[in-house]
Amino acid sequence: MEAYDCEYDVLDDMRGIQNAMIEAAERTGATVVDVAFRKFEPYGVSGVVVISESHLAIHTWPEFGYAAIDLFTCGDKADPWRAFEYLSSHFKPKKITTMEIKRGNLIASDNKNCVSIDSAKEAVSGE
Amino acid sequence: MEAYDCEYDVLDDMRGIQNAMIEAAERTGATVVDVAFRKFEPYGVSGVVVISESHLAIHTWPEFGYAAIDLFTCGDKADPWRAFEYLSSHFKPKKITTMEIKRGNLIASDNKNCVSIDSAKEAVSGE
Repeated sequence: MEAYDCEYDVLDDMRGIQNAMIEAAERTGATVVDVAFRKFEPYGVSGVVVISESHLAIHTWPEFGYAAIDLFTCGDKADPWRAFEYLSSHFKPKKITTMEIKRGNLIASDNKNCVSIDSAKEAVSGE
Repeated sequence: MEAYDCEYDVLDDMRGIQNAMIEAAERTGATVVDVAFRKFEPYGVSGVVVISESHLAIHTWPEFGYAAIDLFTCGDKADPWRAFEYLSSHFKPKKITTMEIKRGNLIASDNKNCVSIDSAKEAVSGE
């Protein structure tokens, strides 16, 4: 998930981003097991929320109004698009690009919801 | 990076994986700023190494011999392929699949090395 044209202050607010990423993780239906966030000088935030066999990661460049966000989920219960929707409402980007990548085709054979990497769906929306 | 057909014990060894991920991060030329790893029962490890504006993440499924690894780097100095080479030597997968995704086309305009998401290179190697 690429979020463009976000407000500088939102992208430089580590505490706000951390809370939003935790909330987003919980909205996928997952349980948060670890959190690691850092604020960089003069600007920028990096952070990761680790959930079971999954994670959400973010890196922000307030000077460009840009955030790169990874939503890695596994299993039928975890829905990454709920996190996407929540983070979209938090960062309010004027343009969003998303790319969905299926991981680990071995897993698919055991009926887990991490299927072939071969098929990648890209969706673009924006103003 | 998808690593298939790895040894069970290697994929279930949280301490070994954590050390390997930190070493891999440092080999990209980056400085580690935070580390978060978890061992799951009965098997499996998830973890993230946060580096400046970047991260390395891993989720292992020892029961499938499989690990999903993300190597997110930014800038001219950080070379994710050095991490790839080190992790390949650590996990010794019989098959590896990689996909390189360029992130954040706004960043490219300012001469940072995170360029258009439009071009994704996929390389497959294995037995």
